[in-house]
Amino acid sequence: MDNGSSVQRVTASLREVAGTLPAGAKLPSSRRLVADLGVGPVTVQRAIDALVADGTVVTRPGAGTFVARSHRTVTVDTDWQRVALGASPVRTEGVLAALTVPSHDVLDMARGYLDLSLQPSSRLASAMARAARRPEAWTVPPPAGVPELRTWFAQQLGADRDDVFITPGGQGALSTVLRSIVPAGSPVLVAVPSYPGVISLLRSAGLVPVPVPTDADGVRPELLERAFEQSGARLLYLQPTYANPDGSVLSTDRRRPVLEIAARAGAFIVEDDFARWLGHGPTTSPSLLRDDTDGRVITVNSLSKVSGPSLRVGCVVARGPVARRIAGLSFVDHLIVARPLQEAAVELVTGAGWNAHLRGLSAALGARLDALSTALARELPECSWPRPRGGFSLWLRLPRGVDDLEVARRTRERGLAVGPGRHYVVAEEDAAHLRLCYAAITEQQIPAAVKVLAASL
Amino acid sequence: MDNGSSVQRVTASLREVAGTLPAGAKLPSSRRLVADLGVGPVTVQRAIDALVADGTVVTRPGAGTFVARSHRTVTVDTDWQRVALGASPVRTEGVLAALTVPSHDVLDMARGYLDLSLQPSSRLASAMARAARRPEAWTVPPPAGVPELRTWFAQQLGADRDDVFITPGGQGALSTVLRSIVPAGSPVLVAVPSYPGVISLLRSAGLVPVPVPTDADGVRPELLERAFEQSGARLLYLQPTYANPDGSVLSTDRRRPVLEIAARAGAFIVEDDFARWLGHGPTTSPSLLRDDTDGRVITVNSLSKVSGPSLRVGCVVARGPVARRIAGLSFVDHLIVARPLQEAAVELVTGAGWNAHLRGLSAALGARLDALSTALARELPECSWPRPRGGFSLWLRLPRGVDDLEVARRTRERGLAVGPGRHYVVAEEDAAHLRLCYAAITEQQIPAAVKVLAASL
Repeated sequence: MDNGSSVQRVTASLREVAGTLPAGAKLPSSRRLVADLGVGPVTVQRAIDALVADGTVVTRPGAGTFVARSHRTVTVDTDWQRVALGASPVRTEGVLAALTVPSHDVLDMARGYLDLSLQPSSRLASAMARAARRPEAWTVPPPAGVPELRTWFAQQLGADRDDVFITPGGQGALSTVLRSIVPAGSPVLVAVPSYPGVISLLRSAGLVPVPVPTDADGVRPELLERAFEQSGARLLYLQPTYANPDGSVLSTDRRRPVLEIAARAGAFIVEDDFARWLGHGPTTSPSLLRDDTDGRVITVNSLSKVSGPSLRVGCVVARGPVARRIAGLSFVDHLIVARPLQEAAVELVTGAGWNAHLRGLSAALGARLDALSTALARELPECSWPRPRGGFSLWLRLPRGVDDLEVARRTRERGLAVGPGRHYVVAEEDAAHLRLCYAAITEQQIPAAVKVLAASL
Repeated sequence: MDNGSSVQRVTASLREVAGTLPAGAKLPSSRRLVADLGVGPVTVQRAIDALVADGTVVTRPGAGTFVARSHRTVTVDTDWQRVALGASPVRTEGVLAALTVPSHDVLDMARGYLDLSLQPSSRLASAMARAARRPEAWTVPPPAGVPELRTWFAQQLGADRDDVFITPGGQGALSTVLRSIVPAGSPVLVAVPSYPGVISLLRSAGLVPVPVPTDADGVRPELLERAFEQSGARLLYLQPTYANPDGSVLSTDRRRPVLEIAARAGAFIVEDDFARWLGHGPTTSPSLLRDDTDGRVITVNSLSKVSGPSLRVGCVVARGPVARRIAGLSFVDHLIVARPLQEAAVELVTGAGWNAHLRGLSAALGARLDALSTALARELPECSWPRPRGGFSLWLRLPRGVDDLEVARRTRERGLAVGPGRHYVVAEEDAAHLRLCYAAITEQQIPAAVKVLAASL
């Protein structure tokens, strides 16, 4: 038989064997192992794959499987580096949370990526297989990106194709854009709570995030105006559509004031539109870009949230001289975006199944949110939260005196991963929050997860 | 019949038709066009593909082909941006040269990427097809990279897998690494002539490149020591193996002194090892990393030069605290490296055909260099050049008083693209140079190209 447990057993015994052999020693042939261990060839192969994956052995096609050279044992003295490097400007707390994949027995309400059940995995695979077969697939793409992909983003966002620049994912786009506009040391207004990846990259680039409060209708215009005056900032970072973490939408009546306030400040607005296709309702408000009349709004978008985290394809829409500066820094930062990813993205989003995928995704996220709201209302009457209009995270306000890190630690002990709210703000807040993400947890798991949360409070 | 010219003809007439219709109007069906234009369905399809590619039309699967919304006609006043942005710190001259693909009738001795004939295109395609099929292919990879790929790079460079960090190509790696180590405003020693992409990114990051002369044996130790003393730099950028543009190798007897001089300065050495597999001879000198005893050398490598420019996969090897800082900034810069690219890279470099590819590549580059040297000796006796030991570019010293930009302009008029030398240096030089790249020109084209060059001098 050939199941997970037998693979684990064979993996363990092979690792033991490898441990007794010197680096470079050859392991018995697969055929031999099949005979000795009394398992199927598939089991042996999967065990060897696991050992290759963790670096225990290496396989040389045609030659066999060999014990890998052991990891570093002698520790070199690198203390001189600590003097040379000095204090670190790099901040990663928030970013890494999005990347850590908890073990399978943990309920995951921390990770900001769709679980496999919501990813169009097979469509991605066939899209990439088609894209990679083209002879030009591995050549240098047009520097601004593959035309079909630029055209598609332009149509989705109400832009002109010439103003669309393809980037390696949303984070890469934001990093390049935010470093393009103002020099290090400059203040940058950030509507809070907000995406930790941007707070991290602003600080890492020597920029100074200045918080601007939001409510259920998005950023508050009167406080935005005050923040511009007080800080002299010339850049505002905003998530008008389904903001991370609270799922709010900038209301229609605030869009014009926000643009006018930025105009008076002579400032750019970076619109992070990452969640455009993650709405729960039938309609989605247009990008702020559509209301822009003077090239003030720079819109960043990405496909990784709506398809799979490894489809590192995004775009920047910018008009005027700033578009050239962003493109220039993008070339300097990473030359080009891998053409196969761009072509696969085109195949995916222009393929027949795409709209069906979006409808299914919207329904699934809506159902998860309903389950989460119901469970929270039942289990945590002392907590409050604005209902997200889209996206896949809920911003839970904790009772006074409760510490978010402490709660996150307790839930983790009980097998639930949640996001401590402090990573989503840039200054002291009146109340602590938790970010509850329903991208990677199923509807069925949610009641149990909320019970764990209640028990941890 | 169905050849290129008929495709062009059909494309042209369809573009004309689209021009007469309003945005959103539907084009006749493919069947109809086949009948009306008297060509095969393949021809019609390829014509429509061309129009989609240039944004003239869009196709909606199942619905048909429609005229795309026309590009921006109203020009918005964006002059306010010029005040808001101020002078640009972004420098791209050199970088863009590597990306521009000249038209087919131009002999290309400018582009630094292998032409299709030397790229393992079919192997890349099948490697990616296999990689993209795995269910986990589109999920979040381990933050430091796919283990098999880290193990492979470690074995190639003589490092430990734990010290290898996977990056989105060499440029992305260099951008993150060079911004990780010293703050903006710091001097950075650069062995010149050197890769324009690094000179551009240093300047764009507000770092100050300080030139250190090289000769046929690589960087000159006594001048390196002087440069460290004079500048107070704590970072040196070096290409010890097959430097771009002159193909030089840091000689064995200089490796120890270079490491000791850097140690006395308390400085890091960034080893750009991009050309490791592009040697023309039977052996390649080991990476400088192998001689490093205290985590001083940070080695950057990439697969794009030896496979295809769109395989955006590279790595950083670093030991000690600096490794964590680099990893942190890499997450902030672009979160992760697309897993399908990493898995495809593993399939490619561990596949049976890889070594054969490397042998064929080395032989082809060597033959191209022989043809180039012979033609230069015959046509340009007044010019001199060191014979490259590897890589795919030759550094041609022009006669006194000859201007590199002017020569490049003249050759371009005659159908030959070459690289002006000034993009490869950071200060005034005694003589002007041209970079002659033989990555994208065939052995047969070389004599004609050199004749054009001679005629342009």
